[in-house]
Amino acid sequence: MRLRKKPWIEERIRELSHVLVDEPAVYKGKWRQYFRNENPLHVEVGTGKGRFITTLARENPAINYIGMEYMRDVIYYAARKAVCNELKNIALLCFDVRHILDVFDYGEIDRLYINFCDPWPKNRHAKRRLTHHEFLARYKQILVPGGEIHFKTDNEQLFAYSLNEFAADRAFQLKNITFDLHNSTFAGNVMTEYEEKFSSKGMKIFRCEAQVLADAP
Amino acid sequence: MRLRKKPWIEERIRELSHVLVDEPAVYKGKWRQYFRNENPLHVEVGTGKGRFITTLARENPAINYIGMEYMRDVIYYAARKAVCNELKNIALLCFDVRHILDVFDYGEIDRLYINFCDPWPKNRHAKRRLTHHEFLARYKQILVPGGEIHFKTDNEQLFAYSLNEFAADRAFQLKNITFDLHNSTFAGNVMTEYEEKFSSKGMKIFRCEAQVLADAP
Repeated sequence: MRLRKKPWIEERIRELSHVLVDEPAVYKGKWRQYFRNENPLHVEVGTGKGRFITTLARENPAINYIGMEYMRDVIYYAARKAVCNELKNIALLCFDVRHILDVFDYGEIDRLYINFCDPWPKNRHAKRRLTHHEFLARYKQILVPGGEIHFKTDNEQLFAYSLNEFAADRAFQLKNITFDLHNSTFAGNVMTEYEEKFSSKGMKIFRCEAQVLADAP
Repeated sequence: MRLRKKPWIEERIRELSHVLVDEPAVYKGKWRQYFRNENPLHVEVGTGKGRFITTLARENPAINYIGMEYMRDVIYYAARKAVCNELKNIALLCFDVRHILDVFDYGEIDRLYINFCDPWPKNRHAKRRLTHHEFLARYKQILVPGGEIHFKTDNEQLFAYSLNEFAADRAFQLKNITFDLHNSTFAGNVMTEYEEKFSSKGMKIFRCEAQVLADAP
């Protein structure tokens, strides 16, 4: 996403610093201390403007949420939503997902959301896709056994690619694969900003879950 | 498929009896004796008019093929193709796939093809779909460890359903999932009669493979 530079944003971000964690690596293995409870931890990568994760945080006060987004000008909006809703169960990290192992410890998180990530359609960029097997290898380290990845995209090629990547890793079991989320039996879907925009134009949304097997190889 | 009754067909079928196996249960566990060699055994369920399996049999003389189709008026055409091409490595069974365990023994077959089976779109008919988990449970018994199911369909709902059924059975590992076979990198696709007709109208063909894991649970 390309946004105009907003010179005022740094000052506003300082006002929101209690939801934006400056040095998240400090909390690796200690996120339950950060939240001061033992609640489950759900993480979203590519949080964008944060509608998805702030909605979930509001609806599920007994779950802690962490949103990761590497663009400061974008995560600002997510932080503002969290503050306006007085959410205590959310932290936002301005952070590159490639380094996710720096901020979460083995088995520290219970669920990972990947929503509408960049499809990187060229084969030579496959490694950048957030469902590339090198990313999956990191996710499965930080997910608890039995933990789940919930993945949504409007990009058919990315979805087919991702199913193959999940299926190739025997640590994961695919579940609830749907090619048309909004016309499926799936209940309780929370839409992202992007999802609302594109599904309102009639585009289909693909979704699947991948569970880390308790006896993962 | 509904065909006009052809009164002449029984007589012609008798002429083709050397490729149409009358009592296939006799050969359960003995198909290599039937073919008089130790070649791999590939089976197609729902062979129809037999273009797919007779093409493969012609191209791969070192593999034995068995086609199953329960409609006599349809399998006649498959038998005629086999005879006209003087194929020695093919047998055809006029047989209901539900009873597949009556004709193949544990680990007897190396590959199973399911091509464009009836999607049975109503949920209450799900058990009739050839990728329903009760069918998968039978297939995995008769497939050798490491053996594969190759599945093609033009029906998106059936494909999504089937991916979920395969993924739910940990004996299988999904591979080579594609949502658009004819625009994929997959080489060597052999088209069925049905596939040619529908893909020529621009319909997409979905395909996947499911391998029986050697250390299947």
